Amino acid sequence: MATLKDIGFAAAINLLSAFAFLVAFAILRLQPVNDRVYFPKWYRKGVRSSPTRSGAFVNKFVNLDCRTYLRFLNWMPDALKMPESELIEHAGLDSVVHIRIYLFGLKVLVPLAVLAFVVLVPVNWTGQTLERIKNLTFSDIDKLSISNVPAGSKRLYAHIAMFYLFTLWTCYVLHEEYKKIAAMRLRFIASENRRPDQFTVLVRNIPPDPDESVSEHVEHFFCVNHPDQYLTHQVVYNANKLAELVAKKKSLQNWLTYYKNKYERKSTKPTTKTGFWGLWGTQVDAIDYYTAEIEKLTEEENKERARVINDPKCIIPAAFVSFKSRWGAAVCAQTQQSSNPTIWLTEWAPEPCDIHWDNLSIPYVDLTIRRLLMGVAFFFLTFFFIIPIAFVQSLANIEGIQKVLPFLKPLIDKQSVKSIIQGFLPGIALKIFLSVLPMILMTMSKIEGFTSLSSLERRSAGKFYLFILVNMFIGNIITGTALQQLKAFLNQPPTEIPKIIGVSIPMRATFFITYIMVDGWAGIAAEILRLVPLVIYHLKNTFLVKTDQDRDEAMNPGYLQFATSEPRIQFYFLLGFVYAVVTPILLPFIIVFFSFSYMVFRHQVINVYNQMYESGAAFWPDVHRRFIMNVVVSQLLMMGLLSTKNAEISTPLLIPLPILTIWFHVYCKGRFQSAFVTFPLQDAMVKDTLERATEPNLNMRNYIKDAYVHPVFKAGELERPLVVDEEENHPLVQTKRTCRMNSKRESDVNSDTDS
Amino acid sequence: MATLKDIGFAAAINLLSAFAFLVAFAILRLQPVNDRVYFPKWYRKGVRSSPTRSGAFVNKFVNLDCRTYLRFLNWMPDALKMPESELIEHAGLDSVVHIRIYLFGLKVLVPLAVLAFVVLVPVNWTGQTLERIKNLTFSDIDKLSISNVPAGSKRLYAHIAMFYLFTLWTCYVLHEEYKKIAAMRLRFIASENRRPDQFTVLVRNIPPDPDESVSEHVEHFFCVNHPDQYLTHQVVYNANKLAELVAKKKSLQNWLTYYKNKYERKSTKPTTKTGFWGLWGTQVDAIDYYTAEIEKLTEEENKERARVINDPKCIIPAAFVSFKSRWGAAVCAQTQQSSNPTIWLTEWAPEPCDIHWDNLSIPYVDLTIRRLLMGVAFFFLTFFFIIPIAFVQSLANIEGIQKVLPFLKPLIDKQSVKSIIQGFLPGIALKIFLSVLPMILMTMSKIEGFTSLSSLERRSAGKFYLFILVNMFIGNIITGTALQQLKAFLNQPPTEIPKIIGVSIPMRATFFITYIMVDGWAGIAAEILRLVPLVIYHLKNTFLVKTDQDRDEAMNPGYLQFATSEPRIQFYFLLGFVYAVVTPILLPFIIVFFSFSYMVFRHQVINVYNQMYESGAAFWPDVHRRFIMNVVVSQLLMMGLLSTKNAEISTPLLIPLPILTIWFHVYCKGRFQSAFVTFPLQDAMVKDTLERATEPNLNMRNYIKDAYVHPVFKAGELERPLVVDEEENHPLVQTKRTCRMNSKRESDVNSDTDS
Repeated sequence: MATLKDIGFAAAINLLSAFAFLVAFAILRLQPVNDRVYFPKWYRKGVRSSPTRSGAFVNKFVNLDCRTYLRFLNWMPDALKMPESELIEHAGLDSVVHIRIYLFGLKVLVPLAVLAFVVLVPVNWTGQTLERIKNLTFSDIDKLSISNVPAGSKRLYAHIAMFYLFTLWTCYVLHEEYKKIAAMRLRFIASENRRPDQFTVLVRNIPPDPDESVSEHVEHFFCVNHPDQYLTHQVVYNANKLAELVAKKKSLQNWLTYYKNKYERKSTKPTTKTGFWGLWGTQVDAIDYYTAEIEKLTEEENKERARVINDPKCIIPAAFVSFKSRWGAAVCAQTQQSSNPTIWLTEWAPEPCDIHWDNLSIPYVDLTIRRLLMGVAFFFLTFFFIIPIAFVQSLANIEGIQKVLPFLKPLIDKQSVKSIIQGFLPGIALKIFLSVLPMILMTMSKIEGFTSLSSLERRSAGKFYLFILVNMFIGNIITGTALQQLKAFLNQPPTEIPKIIGVSIPMRATFFITYIMVDGWAGIAAEILRLVPLVIYHLKNTFLVKTDQDRDEAMNPGYLQFATSEPRIQFYFLLGFVYAVVTPILLPFIIVFFSFSYMVFRHQVINVYNQMYESGAAFWPDVHRRFIMNVVVSQLLMMGLLSTKNAEISTPLLIPLPILTIWFHVYCKGRFQSAFVTFPLQDAMVKDTLERATEPNLNMRNYIKDAYVHPVFKAGELERPLVVDEEENHPLVQTKRTCRMNSKRESDVNSDTDS
Repeated sequence: MATLKDIGFAAAINLLSAFAFLVAFAILRLQPVNDRVYFPKWYRKGVRSSPTRSGAFVNKFVNLDCRTYLRFLNWMPDALKMPESELIEHAGLDSVVHIRIYLFGLKVLVPLAVLAFVVLVPVNWTGQTLERIKNLTFSDIDKLSISNVPAGSKRLYAHIAMFYLFTLWTCYVLHEEYKKIAAMRLRFIASENRRPDQFTVLVRNIPPDPDESVSEHVEHFFCVNHPDQYLTHQVVYNANKLAELVAKKKSLQNWLTYYKNKYERKSTKPTTKTGFWGLWGTQVDAIDYYTAEIEKLTEEENKERARVINDPKCIIPAAFVSFKSRWGAAVCAQTQQSSNPTIWLTEWAPEPCDIHWDNLSIPYVDLTIRRLLMGVAFFFLTFFFIIPIAFVQSLANIEGIQKVLPFLKPLIDKQSVKSIIQGFLPGIALKIFLSVLPMILMTMSKIEGFTSLSSLERRSAGKFYLFILVNMFIGNIITGTALQQLKAFLNQPPTEIPKIIGVSIPMRATFFITYIMVDGWAGIAAEILRLVPLVIYHLKNTFLVKTDQDRDEAMNPGYLQFATSEPRIQFYFLLGFVYAVVTPILLPFIIVFFSFSYMVFRHQVINVYNQMYESGAAFWPDVHRRFIMNVVVSQLLMMGLLSTKNAEISTPLLIPLPILTIWFHVYCKGRFQSAFVTFPLQDAMVKDTLERATEPNLNMRNYIKDAYVHPVFKAGELERPLVVDEEENHPLVQTKRTCRMNSKRESDVNSDTDS
């Protein structure tokens, strides 16, 4: 039974710890030696370079200027200063729309909080139900919640009316946001530079032909069926083995650099062992050994490269077909080519750096089977994940450890160590599971056969959201595992389920408040500190870095992980929306989380993150759908909660809400979704016409030629085709948007002019 | 408790009555005077003409040739003789696929019946459960059903295994059928004559433009965005008022003909009264009166026609845009034109005679609102229709009638009349409701805003199926109204609902057997007799017919009503599939129904029906989906039934079934559905190329010109544009397929060569 005072105290502690993180961040970021950890984005852009200003040597590593420390919170207003349009140019639309989700949360929840505090808190406070029940200990929080309103009271009309108002407001903001983001996306696409993917279509499931190679077959098919528009195509090689070799070579090269550095510093020839990880085997000269290994690998790589290019079996039945105009590509991507809808499947090609190459060759029947299997697997993962974990937990007790690792016995027998292990062990399996869960989900999405990284992330986010909804939200409201709930729910009438959950909602308010503070506030503060990249960067910098280019590669700017962070936002939003009517006191905590997150992520997007790809906010329809799901879930729970309050009229009053909300979703989908899926012919034609007018002599074939070659074939060659470079430096419309993986290279080119 | 004997007796009676219908049909169809009622299709085709052979006068009306009566069942083999490919040419793909649904039912149910009788009937018969319970009266039917198997018995594994086999077989046949019909559709489309709708796209929601008329706006938009392909367009007029006038004029003309005929026969000038329906008002000369009225109306009609054509407000924001090639039309229909997905909506234009003109101008937001409202309305219609009917029933008792119509009192007071009314009245409201239900559903579909008659029929069929499923199937298994069931189900656990229904299934077998015989067998026999069209034709023939053309119009061949007959097939299939495991004795009755229906409808399609439109079996995906729904519903019910039999293992054993079935549906949808929705570019290109080679000088603009003019503008002009006529008489590929509404006209043209 937490009182307001307890909550306030907990909030103060959490605020303090978050503040401590912020202070640490403020100090660390001012040190020149950490510059590349906290401002990698600017390095990538070529605007900032390593601190080499004149002055004492020590200034290169530690900031001794006291004035800068006084302004240590300045990053906050700085983060908010950059206008949105500039931010889109700076970081891409994906990042901007991602941080707008936090802003959206604020737009919805702040008015909700104000209304709830003005209307519902007084109504609840004067309800006097809890005071009348003798021998009941209750807290101030409970007095503020709907629990304090007597059953069957007319006061509940206030809650119903407010809930209608809340839903209306949310739908209004959702609609405006969808409209805004659709417009942003269209403007973004319209203002985009010429890029190969605008002219290119990914063709999959090319049927085998006994007389022609895949390449010939593709050429003939498109010459016949798109005679005026077809330009060229690029077959796709199955280069998975080659990619492995390239990766292995790169790791060997890292070791070689490490030993060379060591040699330079110590002047004694370093040695290594030939066995696994250099732990055993014969002792050899490290530099010679790795040089030889690399040479061997290079030879193997060249052989494999030749094999892949020459062996027709290495060509998979997929191709990137390019057209003479955006109009032609848009037409091909949106139409059905063959009367058999499982062959010649066309879709708008992802950016070259957004392609997940492994999945390009999956045939149609496989795809449907894979999706079925993954659907079943995900169901079991969600509802039964607790079983293997409980099993591991039962193994991972002190006795088990003693049996497996008897030499640890003397250590374990010490009382202090024993109690730590006993306190720590049961939770560790769950913790490990939860931290690898996003990777599991991503693997499942990969098995499902999506062909671009962006769609993989979107798909994983959907799975993660459902997992959180079942196991974190409902699982925490009615304690018990998802499996137990599932069993219970199957034996309950459908109208009982919302009741069971609804009744428990007010009781769990304090738990969720604590959760928001510990997971939300502290988590965000840790995000800005970037402790792990900081450590790794310094390790790499010490042992591996030789040139500036190495140092560039040692920076790991990271990126906004849509697959994990968006479902978390949805979870907090769901909490806010549910408790807005039930226990409004929870809202301020979520508002603090959202505003703090917005600031932090805006700072990170400006200074740190480097997105892997740019999908042009293609994820918004998913985000919108999940917000709608949240609203509908809350509505069902509210119906359950109010029906236990003996407000008989509440169910018929609330039934229109989910129906209207779902209809609103259908309406929005029809109204806006296509902006995120298709490329309208009108827009394509406008861009084509403009381009033909300004550049009548453009050689499209040269421009497209190497854009969709598998990255391993480009591995050695840092130079890009001349035409592309020229185009990117003198774009038709001036924007900074280029393929993320090339941005560094481009920045090298631009740095002399920009900085 | 019906015994096998009782059932056999009922079957004999029903078979006899069906046989009586058939004999009546056999005699009536041989009379030359009924020739146009039983063979209208051949008249429409121009192959058959009125019996004018030489001989006695009486031979014109009555068939006196005794030999023909001996072969009175010959129509049955005749109906089956015509090969399918010829039938497609003769009657269109829609009809052929429609009667194939019956064949599909047979393909699934006959092997099921054989297996069930070989395996399940012995298993049930020797179950001995019912015999052991003392004082229980049970019938032979119950001994054949699953009720006779003891709870928890190992025998139930046989049922589970057979159910798996049944599902597998059904899915296999469904897959083969979908494949076959998709291939048939593609072949049909490929072999089709040149038709305007192949080159035309329906564009809706054209945005208003302040500077341009709709026509200019359309022309500019498509000239810019489809520069190489755009040919011409036809704006759509809001001619609803004009259509009313035309209809009114036609009815007046009928009356005029009636009086003229009367005058010719009796030689006294007929008179009429000017008031409502000629019942009161001043007495006038009928022929003069109607001639004057028609003249007045003609003037009014011409004025309205001029107004519609000249008033820009009568042009609705929709247009039929035609392209130079099928490729161009296919591209436009499948792509998004504008970045705002609610304007410039394009879809493949329906056939000119398939268009529902009233719905062409509905804006996007209206559409979504209409669909929401109709969804809610349909829900209430399904679950609450019994309320107004019960209300009407409560009014329509003897006392109520006496109050409203006191002069009937002496009649009603007679005991015999009273008892008839009392027995008849309660049911009459329900009967009337059920007979107007298809019209109500069609009206709802029209309100939803579909633009073609074929889609309206498909939509109505979907609604009707759901209504039947809830009110006829589930409503008859667990007696009680749908409303009561809804209430009960909301308060039951989701796992309880299939149990409640499942337990009742075996008990209702005899009821459904009787239902199949009365509704199914007798209904189909009545279908072939065509009693209502027979009477109406003879009435019209007597009073209205003057010329042969009039007589042609007096024939009402009717058509295969997809919206009402397909859901009925689904219902019978559902019964068959559910009872295949529970009470296999029901299967033969359904098999008889299906084979009889197949024969009757094949006969009707060959000799009678004249379809309104030809959609190329576009309804098959809907039919497939409903078959899958039937299978899934049976699976859920089977799970409920078996779980009450204490077969604990049954639920986990059966759970994969619905999952696999739904996955199978998703697979089939992806594999085949697009053949029914889009026009693949490859196929379009093949047809275009062929046409360019054979007719290089075709004037497309002339060909398309008047195809999509509103029918009222064509009302007076029986001649069609010269180019179209030429084309239809000398088609590129020889088929008989033309727009249904023109077939008569065409047959007139052809008759001199054909007959």
